[in-house]
Amino acid sequence: MILCALACSGATAQTIKKVAPGVWSITYGTPETFTPSMFKKAPVESNQSAPEQPPVDIQDIRFKTTSRGCVLELPMDDAEKIYGFGLQVNTFQQRGLRREMHASSNIVGNVGFSHAPVPFYVSTNGYGVLINSSRYVTFYCGTMQKAVDLKDNTARELGFTTKDLYSPHNRYSDRMIVEVPSEKGVEVLLFAGPGMDGAVRRYNLYAGGGCLPPLWGLGMKYRGKGDFTDERAVNLAGYFRENNIPCTTYGLEPGWQSRAYSCSFVWNQQRFPEPAKFINKMDSLHYHLNLWEHAYTNPVSPLFKPLKGKAGDYMVWGGLVPDFADPKARAIFGAYHDTAFVQKGIAAFKLDECDAADYKDAAAQWSFPELSLFPSGIDGEKMHELFGLLYQKAILRIFQNQRTWLDVRSSGAFASPYPSVLYSDMYNNADYVRMILNAGFSGLLWSPEIRDTRSEADLIRRTQTGVLSAQLCFNSWYLSNPPWFQIDRAKNDNGEFLPDRKELENRIRSLSELRMRLVPYLYTAFSAYHFDGEPPFRALVMDYPSDDTARTVDDEYLIGPSLLAAPFLDGSSHRNVYFPAGNWYDFNTNRKYAGGRSYELDMTLDQVPLFVREGSILPLADPVPFIDAQTGFKITCRVYGGQPAAGSLYEDDGETYGYEKGKYNHVVLKWDGNAGHVTRSGNFQGSLYEVKNWEKIQ
Amino acid sequence: MILCALACSGATAQTIKKVAPGVWSITYGTPETFTPSMFKKAPVESNQSAPEQPPVDIQDIRFKTTSRGCVLELPMDDAEKIYGFGLQVNTFQQRGLRREMHASSNIVGNVGFSHAPVPFYVSTNGYGVLINSSRYVTFYCGTMQKAVDLKDNTARELGFTTKDLYSPHNRYSDRMIVEVPSEKGVEVLLFAGPGMDGAVRRYNLYAGGGCLPPLWGLGMKYRGKGDFTDERAVNLAGYFRENNIPCTTYGLEPGWQSRAYSCSFVWNQQRFPEPAKFINKMDSLHYHLNLWEHAYTNPVSPLFKPLKGKAGDYMVWGGLVPDFADPKARAIFGAYHDTAFVQKGIAAFKLDECDAADYKDAAAQWSFPELSLFPSGIDGEKMHELFGLLYQKAILRIFQNQRTWLDVRSSGAFASPYPSVLYSDMYNNADYVRMILNAGFSGLLWSPEIRDTRSEADLIRRTQTGVLSAQLCFNSWYLSNPPWFQIDRAKNDNGEFLPDRKELENRIRSLSELRMRLVPYLYTAFSAYHFDGEPPFRALVMDYPSDDTARTVDDEYLIGPSLLAAPFLDGSSHRNVYFPAGNWYDFNTNRKYAGGRSYELDMTLDQVPLFVREGSILPLADPVPFIDAQTGFKITCRVYGGQPAAGSLYEDDGETYGYEKGKYNHVVLKWDGNAGHVTRSGNFQGSLYEVKNWEKIQ
Repeated sequence: MILCALACSGATAQTIKKVAPGVWSITYGTPETFTPSMFKKAPVESNQSAPEQPPVDIQDIRFKTTSRGCVLELPMDDAEKIYGFGLQVNTFQQRGLRREMHASSNIVGNVGFSHAPVPFYVSTNGYGVLINSSRYVTFYCGTMQKAVDLKDNTARELGFTTKDLYSPHNRYSDRMIVEVPSEKGVEVLLFAGPGMDGAVRRYNLYAGGGCLPPLWGLGMKYRGKGDFTDERAVNLAGYFRENNIPCTTYGLEPGWQSRAYSCSFVWNQQRFPEPAKFINKMDSLHYHLNLWEHAYTNPVSPLFKPLKGKAGDYMVWGGLVPDFADPKARAIFGAYHDTAFVQKGIAAFKLDECDAADYKDAAAQWSFPELSLFPSGIDGEKMHELFGLLYQKAILRIFQNQRTWLDVRSSGAFASPYPSVLYSDMYNNADYVRMILNAGFSGLLWSPEIRDTRSEADLIRRTQTGVLSAQLCFNSWYLSNPPWFQIDRAKNDNGEFLPDRKELENRIRSLSELRMRLVPYLYTAFSAYHFDGEPPFRALVMDYPSDDTARTVDDEYLIGPSLLAAPFLDGSSHRNVYFPAGNWYDFNTNRKYAGGRSYELDMTLDQVPLFVREGSILPLADPVPFIDAQTGFKITCRVYGGQPAAGSLYEDDGETYGYEKGKYNHVVLKWDGNAGHVTRSGNFQGSLYEVKNWEKIQ
Repeated sequence: MILCALACSGATAQTIKKVAPGVWSITYGTPETFTPSMFKKAPVESNQSAPEQPPVDIQDIRFKTTSRGCVLELPMDDAEKIYGFGLQVNTFQQRGLRREMHASSNIVGNVGFSHAPVPFYVSTNGYGVLINSSRYVTFYCGTMQKAVDLKDNTARELGFTTKDLYSPHNRYSDRMIVEVPSEKGVEVLLFAGPGMDGAVRRYNLYAGGGCLPPLWGLGMKYRGKGDFTDERAVNLAGYFRENNIPCTTYGLEPGWQSRAYSCSFVWNQQRFPEPAKFINKMDSLHYHLNLWEHAYTNPVSPLFKPLKGKAGDYMVWGGLVPDFADPKARAIFGAYHDTAFVQKGIAAFKLDECDAADYKDAAAQWSFPELSLFPSGIDGEKMHELFGLLYQKAILRIFQNQRTWLDVRSSGAFASPYPSVLYSDMYNNADYVRMILNAGFSGLLWSPEIRDTRSEADLIRRTQTGVLSAQLCFNSWYLSNPPWFQIDRAKNDNGEFLPDRKELENRIRSLSELRMRLVPYLYTAFSAYHFDGEPPFRALVMDYPSDDTARTVDDEYLIGPSLLAAPFLDGSSHRNVYFPAGNWYDFNTNRKYAGGRSYELDMTLDQVPLFVREGSILPLADPVPFIDAQTGFKITCRVYGGQPAAGSLYEDDGETYGYEKGKYNHVVLKWDGNAGHVTRSGNFQGSLYEVKNWEKIQ
């Protein structure tokens, strides 16, 4: 429905459409091709109420074309704060910053580059804005002051230090300025609230709803060394079973292929001479198998010939770059993976190197140039922004009624429904935590994988962060033995183990068990991601946009409706924790904290930095060693505080897309003051949970 | 003269013009506006012979427009090496690299960003290529392999380390690929040799000839602390005279202005209450005064109102960005400087911050956005590339018959005739030396200024590098006392001096005296820069393009016809020195080295890493304490080897542009085997040199 099309003198010509309840599309100038929305899923309907009017006065949005492309200006008020832009790494609140949407495996200082840039931001005023462009869009979030705003009294005094001289000066303007290069038009999507959380939910639902992982995806993933043979992989997989360390997924790194960098997508004859036997063996150990790859297709690959006419004009690592903007190229790529791997028992893939590295030291630069041209007509710049998304689409198309759980190194706009976690080789601990929060603003999931650690305490604290994230993953691609045997890389490879290795192993076991205890709660949080768009992991500001402290907290986050995590960084056991309004319980000790203020807290390495909202019923499972179709969970409900709201558990088969056809249950948990009550409703015939205990916590 | 205009099927439509002897212009597509050449000076005629045919087969140059702009491909042969791209910092030979021409005060890893990017490269095959664009042009110097080149046998084996996995793979292609964003056409200028040196000379002459500094510009410049008062500046200036340390120029840093960051361009009433008196006093001490500034115009400035309608739509540090692409804005800016400063005795300016800083930590980012628009019609991206150039033009226009010598933080294409030295806050010692070489490929001059040093030895070695560069400059903008009093910043400010301060002072005096001894030689080398285009400071490869070692040497360089410098880095007294063909003498000991090989050399701190070509007559002056209109030089000619070629000295008034009207002399120095002979020819009436001694060195 086109609401209006204005071209009055002075005003910007525009076409306004309401594209979903609470979602408006405003189009200026000549439409762009290969936009993110061209590849998106259909929206999931929102049950939120929607305002009748757009959340931003469209007449206040200015558009112009320029010699370089086009420029938009959107108004901001003085108090408004801005979050989002995808998987931002080293910043949180973005007002006052320039953010350049540029898919990149490194951050180039601090300019907005990201594995998963998303041209979407959300405001504390309760609305979201998406620039539907696959260009390297730049957002000047109130950084640039216009000359027309210049007042004679803004002159400042002399400075004599570098800090004085370069300090920002009136940099917080009241305009969000957006540049879209090379285009003469742009579509803006406005997402109404209510609230920041409401705007983000609306974005996620418009994208197709958040993903629902397979149940097994929520357990621990372990990725073994890159040059392991089948035998060494099986041995390591056996180690977890023998030592009762829960683990659901085993990942193979490049050595499973006959060629890598670029990829053959063919089993390595020396290391894996009998893939079927290997897959069977891992299946008998109850593992889901995940295969590493990237998309650059080596000349020896069976995919090379079929893709040769469907690839970009420049190579990466001597391999073709498939034209994933072409559905036929995605179909060829997917069909091969289906026949060669999925039909033979492979559960998932790790889609590596689908970002790029141009802005780093020359020797480490790689990827196709932006000037590349692909047969579909897409250019290299747009392909960079979309490659991770389209690569996921190529793989996901083969998972028709079987869910999968991908690792992916790049993603973008409207990725909410993709069952994928992002990961990185940048290992800054504070960044890894912040990325959990930032991912939640833009329909992304982040896996703070564990590999490099500074100390044993750092290993434990990083593992805790993994437990409290979208994925618990150890990525030991260069370690012969698990990192808890030895954190030093050379010694680990050499078989020189830490003297207290068993103690560390016990802690890791406990943490993987804790992850298993949380699986029903997390799975339920993911169901809210799918059906309501609610990010399972999200910044405090999302739920408390008016709380000035919450606006700045970038190292704590909410998990589902009831939990707050406050990870320890760099092996520390001490930190400041801010609690928003309400009362909060220490998950370990049940000590109660009044919200609206901060506390200096210490925790032993056995304690996890997890807190429970008063009034919650928290379902915790008995840990299971693995997850398969037969897995059921025995639940203990912890009741926090005197008058808890009803809790809930989401239930389905954990494996298929039956839930899209209504095959799921809501298991409602109620506490009447003395006893707990469980009621189940829905169309799923099975039963995933058995509630066996209720624990009252005051 | 248009030679041809082709638009045959398959070939690229183009217009070919010979624009000067040995210089061809090839234009593809729609011409760009605000190109570098639009602002260039008229060519100086070359007395080199010029080939009839372009040095590159124009039919092998491919052009196409794309969704992002346009792309050029130029052929390269397998053995060819590439140099240039302006003031490149951390790389030397550029084949195998991606170089992005982007004016920036930091290098963002290693991607080609530079204070002074120049879209010009020169090949060991003896030709130069300039892309006449003010866009952020990117050169892929054989880094990108086309898919059509893919052979089945290029597949490589598995890698399991980060190094293996990311190593370049067939990255050296045979194509130079150039992307010009936002434009649908481009002009390419081809410069013929003979040789690399010939191509660079032709480029410099086409640009208008290399600059000829005022004689005083070649002596030591000292910049005092930013918050000095007139009294403290005069005291420090007096210190040099009292202690017989030659110094010709004193520079005032920001504190001379009433407001800075942005600038008022008005004397500070507190620090400099009586500017005329101060200028007189410094003049009586025989100093040339240099004033720091940048162009961003503070609202309190007298320049603010006149520039308000002639400035960009975005501010920098709360100041206007003058539209220097408009000759009227340049005229206003220049005229003010003329009246307020030059007519009152100011000799020169330091034009700071005319680059930009976007790709660094958010807190330190500054400058106007690329999407800026200026009244002349130029956009922010082009203005970034041209701002340093145009700022120089605005200032230089007032120096009609009086030469000046500027410091400038950014420059670009066709800057050869501008009497300016570039400087930086990046203080890596190896980079500082490499930048001397790189500047020489593109008509730029680099001042490896001295400020931060690690040790006393580092101070001495850095000073030696300054002596052997286009400018010897101490930039003590944050030091209360000269760095040889105390290298530690806090202690220096505190008046805690080094115990061996006097010994250091003696060394600095000797080095400034050495600089004075070299002034006639350097001045003569600069005259060759002006009249013949020969860079006074240049890489060995420029003169020895077929010498495989010379192609890689990025830490030695030639000065004029006879000298080779091999600076010591980081305070070291040991290094490997490569000598090209011929014999070379140690300047200090007269020890002779056979060329075509390398030597491990040690030198004491009293020795300078300077070598003299056998067969040279090297004129050395008695040091003078300062340089003014009365200065004359007493010369000793050192004769190196048995059968020296004639030496020469260039002679003029050292101050005016009379040389452009032929008012100069050549003083020819000849050695007949027993005695020296001096002959003078030319139209200059005075005499700058008196040759008093000849020294024979075997």
